[in-house]
Amino acid sequence: LESGRMRRLKPMLHALHPAEIALLLESVPRAKREVVWSLVPEEDHGETLLHVNDEVRSELIEAMDHSVLLAATEGMPIDDLADFIEDLPDQVTREVLRSMDVQNRERLEAVMSYPSDSAGGLMNNDTITVRPDVTLDVVGRYLRQRGTLPEDTNTLFVVSRYGRYLGMLTLAKLVTLDPERDVSEVMDTDLEALTVDMPAAQVAKRFQDLDLISAPVVDPDGRLVGRITIDDVVDVIRDEAEHSIMTMAGLDEEEDVFAPIARSARRRAVWLGANLFTAFLAAQVVGLFEATLSQVVALAVLMPIVASMGGIGGSQTLTLMIRGLSLGQIGFSNARTLLVKELAVAVINGLLWGAVVGVIAEVWFGNAVLGLIIAVALVINQIGAAVAGVGIPLAMKKMNIDPALAGSVVLTTITDVIGFSAFLGLGTLFLLD
Amino acid sequence: LESGRMRRLKPMLHALHPAEIALLLESVPRAKREVVWSLVPEEDHGETLLHVNDEVRSELIEAMDHSVLLAATEGMPIDDLADFIEDLPDQVTREVLRSMDVQNRERLEAVMSYPSDSAGGLMNNDTITVRPDVTLDVVGRYLRQRGTLPEDTNTLFVVSRYGRYLGMLTLAKLVTLDPERDVSEVMDTDLEALTVDMPAAQVAKRFQDLDLISAPVVDPDGRLVGRITIDDVVDVIRDEAEHSIMTMAGLDEEEDVFAPIARSARRRAVWLGANLFTAFLAAQVVGLFEATLSQVVALAVLMPIVASMGGIGGSQTLTLMIRGLSLGQIGFSNARTLLVKELAVAVINGLLWGAVVGVIAEVWFGNAVLGLIIAVALVINQIGAAVAGVGIPLAMKKMNIDPALAGSVVLTTITDVIGFSAFLGLGTLFLLD
Repeated sequence: LESGRMRRLKPMLHALHPAEIALLLESVPRAKREVVWSLVPEEDHGETLLHVNDEVRSELIEAMDHSVLLAATEGMPIDDLADFIEDLPDQVTREVLRSMDVQNRERLEAVMSYPSDSAGGLMNNDTITVRPDVTLDVVGRYLRQRGTLPEDTNTLFVVSRYGRYLGMLTLAKLVTLDPERDVSEVMDTDLEALTVDMPAAQVAKRFQDLDLISAPVVDPDGRLVGRITIDDVVDVIRDEAEHSIMTMAGLDEEEDVFAPIARSARRRAVWLGANLFTAFLAAQVVGLFEATLSQVVALAVLMPIVASMGGIGGSQTLTLMIRGLSLGQIGFSNARTLLVKELAVAVINGLLWGAVVGVIAEVWFGNAVLGLIIAVALVINQIGAAVAGVGIPLAMKKMNIDPALAGSVVLTTITDVIGFSAFLGLGTLFLLD
Repeated sequence: LESGRMRRLKPMLHALHPAEIALLLESVPRAKREVVWSLVPEEDHGETLLHVNDEVRSELIEAMDHSVLLAATEGMPIDDLADFIEDLPDQVTREVLRSMDVQNRERLEAVMSYPSDSAGGLMNNDTITVRPDVTLDVVGRYLRQRGTLPEDTNTLFVVSRYGRYLGMLTLAKLVTLDPERDVSEVMDTDLEALTVDMPAAQVAKRFQDLDLISAPVVDPDGRLVGRITIDDVVDVIRDEAEHSIMTMAGLDEEEDVFAPIARSARRRAVWLGANLFTAFLAAQVVGLFEATLSQVVALAVLMPIVASMGGIGGSQTLTLMIRGLSLGQIGFSNARTLLVKELAVAVINGLLWGAVVGVIAEVWFGNAVLGLIIAVALVINQIGAAVAGVGIPLAMKKMNIDPALAGSVVLTTITDVIGFSAFLGLGTLFLLD
């Protein structure tokens, strides 16, 4: 991005979609983001800000003039605006609200009153409603009179006089069925409406299970308050899946790859510190066997192998559990069956690789007892890893802690402790003079 | 699931959606799946089979009668049927093809001729097409004559006389605009059609970036061959995100939690074996310092700490890289900037935790030089971890290997080797009498 390239960048930015501009901004080092941003066409500001991750968004917002920010919010759908407005300076928020007409302001305030990770926070309240006792012909004339429909409207919602949700009327039915029929005869009633306080994760699951494109949202009294379309849910699905992988490494799922060094360092320091604490636990176990180690140095050479194999075996079980728990495949009721299976796998692989390690150790150090000891320690550690891999996530779930968060740190501590104790303990018993 | 509960299970299964039955099947141990399956209503067979993961699906198919299998394929959308048919016994496939009418058989064969992870494999070819030179009124009358539209049809596709894709006409426009206007005046032409050979991952990205609900698919000559709707893409998005987390642990993303023990053991054995090989590399490094270890046993006690901190630091960088590469945030052009940032983070955290470890080690073993050595080794290992965390995934990408696949095994080998060499090397230089 030298100044020569800058001149060529501007037309390129004009040709890109806001989502692509957002990706470009995320992949540019912090220092150059402001320059790129200044070349983004103003009409793309709003959508681009919606597409960048949280960190980059607040960075850009901080640097923008209030008037430009205000302009960027124009034309944003209500559900997106409700998320966006939370990141704006208070003064801009007030101006945004002031610039809206009464109906839209009320809509925005309604969406903002729900937590952003609930159906209420995901929904858009620009629904088109019709009555059950009119004919399709009347509905058709009403729509033609309106002239336009909100973005991605594929279905109309049928409500009673008191606003209670009764069913859906797809545009596909509207254009294919006999215009003289009543709405109530042809509407779909088999889809249960989502309640406004349903957690976003459950909304996402419902959409995936039923292959939905859009769904009605009702308040506790059954009154229609909005609709959720699948493009809002896609973000939830992706974020959820990404959440596990980032959390398992102690990272935030919105982590900016070019976050300021101080901020990145601070965040990761916490994770390294937690690991250090548990590493010292493992070191103390090793410390118990100082006398043995000073006599049989081969034990010190081989002990990382036992610990490492336990860690790998355990993390396979752990990953399977974390995914199974989040998909709902695994619960307390089938955990015992799963434990039995994982134990069997652990014993088989423990014996297999234990034998291999044992033979290599025997040849390397010319000591058959040492070979036997490492083989046995490896089997013990695989068994411990299986128990820990199944047990830790279940225990964390019971304590309402996200198993992805600390699961791997706790697991490797346990496999280290078991591995070192088993190997060095057996060594102390059978190898000392 | 004792026999008493069985009687209550049957009505429950009738009340469940196929997606929920699928989840139930996945969370039930293998031995009991057949019993549950026998209670699933026949009309749900098809959809349930589409929802279970690959492993459970082939297990169920194997146990089903050919006639029941044939019945299950009835009413399946073409795109789903194309995936499903690949898992069926040859004889059933032939019967399915024979039972279809010519038009549907040709459609199915067209979809099956594309790889399942391409736009062609994802698409459904039940599009409704209209000509550009007719009025909306004519389109409306044509649809009413048809009577029904394929599932999730929200848009019609406008094609030339030769079948070339020209634009889309949403049902929303059809019902709101003046019926006397021509299709060509009101159709949307700004969405570029997807080509039939576009990889599924790119299709998913396009849908997410442009917030699409459905999109046309064209052949290399620009002729419309089908449409992709977002519910097919959602599966791709979720599978992709899950792919990384499972692959990083050496698991298959479709892995059945209750896979047969022998199969699970065999799969994981490969991963453990790869790790064993690399663990021996690390052990050999330790072996080089046998003489040092036998004199200063404290080194053996503390060396797992250095290795473990390097592994954690490196895997944070690695995870950030793997995600950034898959999102397209990171490429070869900005890797150097990222390396500089990761190095800075590594130095800061290395100094911080190095100091903490150093002081603890000094107090524990009453040896200031030992404390200084472990602090320096920790800093060196954090730096090595940052370089490896950035470099390994880029190198793998260049070699066309999935960085999630072997990244963590290679990384921990490198951090182990660096950690052990630095710590034991410095120990040899400064601690021996």
